[in-house]
Amino acid sequence: MDPLAARLRTFAEERDWQQFHTPKNLAMALAGEVGELLAEFQWLTPEQSAQVMCEPEAGARVKAEIGDVMIYLTRLADVLGIDLVEAALAKLDEVATRYPVEQAKGSAAKR
Amino acid sequence: MDPLAARLRTFAEERDWQQFHTPKNLAMALAGEVGELLAEFQWLTPEQSAQVMCEPEAGARVKAEIGDVMIYLTRLADVLGIDLVEAALAKLDEVATRYPVEQAKGSAAKR
Amino acid sequence: MDPLAARLRTFAEERDWQQFHTPKNLAMALAGEVGELLAEFQWLTPEQSAQVMCEPEAGARVKAEIGDVMIYLTRLADVLGIDLVEAALAKLDEVATRYPVEQAKGSAAKR
Amino acid sequence: MDPLAARLRTFAEERDWQQFHTPKNLAMALAGEVGELLAEFQWLTPEQSAQVMCEPEAGARVKAEIGDVMIYLTRLADVLGIDLVEAALAKLDEVATRYPVEQAKGSAAKR
Repeated sequence: MDPLAARLRTFAEERDWQQFHTPKNLAMALAGEVGELLAEFQWLTPEQSAQVMCEPEAGARVKAEIGDVMIYLTRLADVLGIDLVEAALAKLDEVATRYPVEQAKGSAAKR
Repeated sequence: MDPLAARLRTFAEERDWQQFHTPKNLAMALAGEVGELLAEFQWLTPEQSAQVMCEPEAGARVKAEIGDVMIYLTRLADVLGIDLVEAALAKLDEVATRYPVEQAKGSAAKR
Repeated sequence: MDPLAARLRTFAEERDWQQFHTPKNLAMALAGEVGELLAEFQWLTPEQSAQVMCEPEAGARVKAEIGDVMIYLTRLADVLGIDLVEAALAKLDEVATRYPVEQAKGSAAKR
Repeated sequence: MDPLAARLRTFAEERDWQQFHTPKNLAMALAGEVGELLAEFQWLTPEQSAQVMCEPEAGARVKAEIGDVMIYLTRLADVLGIDLVEAALAKLDEVATRYPVEQAKGSAAKR
């Protein structure tokens, strides 16, 4: 089993938090953390956003928000019985078919 | 290097998509996918949400959305130079200090 | 012109904030505020969420978050030249066609 | 009473949808629609986002998403008994105190 998922499961069990950790609630918590991550980038230009890790304070905040997002995503996948990496790879195969290299090159157009 | 991050990097490079993959844009794409995940759970009760993987069609959609979220989270962490698991563990240490087992037991109150 | 939109426009102009108020940035700010709103409800049962305004502290936080969301939504619609109420009514007509009363009654199924 | 809120209330009652319209569920639906709005802007530069209404197809999609967001925000405020404009103005007063014109001029720094 994924060691991070195992640690988060123990963490929740020790605090008797499983009762709150339904998929519905965890999806909301995940979205809340992603909202905090967005707030770090909202007034930056795309170019400034690419330099954010060079600023110690903003960089630390971004890393902490990414950590929060990963915590809830891992916990959500665990309670659903989904393997995160396997789900991502399955989706990637689908995307590869929809966006073949020759046609998608340099274009952000949706298909 | 994380094999999923490496695959996604190659995937983006082959399609010349790095130009679109600024942290700002990837954070938006991540939030967009989380929005689609929320939509799967919005009208379900918490109890129904816990059974979602038992329904083949809804379960497949949830897995696909989780895959999308993981793809953009991994890609965002990669362009920022952040290790996802390390960021989650660092944040977990912080949360453990803020919510000691004895005080947090069975309570969802924020600190 | 909508008086709230006018006030927000003046507010932004006085602070020379129009430069930050592109639709892309405002959509991110809107999503960030919606994330904070979600956080108020994430660990509540649906039944508890229906009583949230009876608790003075939580109720005040929810009202403040709703205010933030309305601020950014109004500002975004203003910079895009969209009339919020007209856009909602146009969409409602579409939804009414997709979900006729007789077929949609009591069902949350998506069409 | 706000005519849009009244229309949405009737719309929900005719379809017996009040049972699904708890604040928790409506907040999720609102966030889901905001996610779709973000998706319209995610690969655009800020400059391109400012021109989005000049493109008929993208402009129509943006207007429809804004309409969806307004629908759920209005419905959520209605079930909570919150006046949207009043909540926004109350919040604006607070923001005005935190960001006085002289100090905030031209700066996106958070306080």
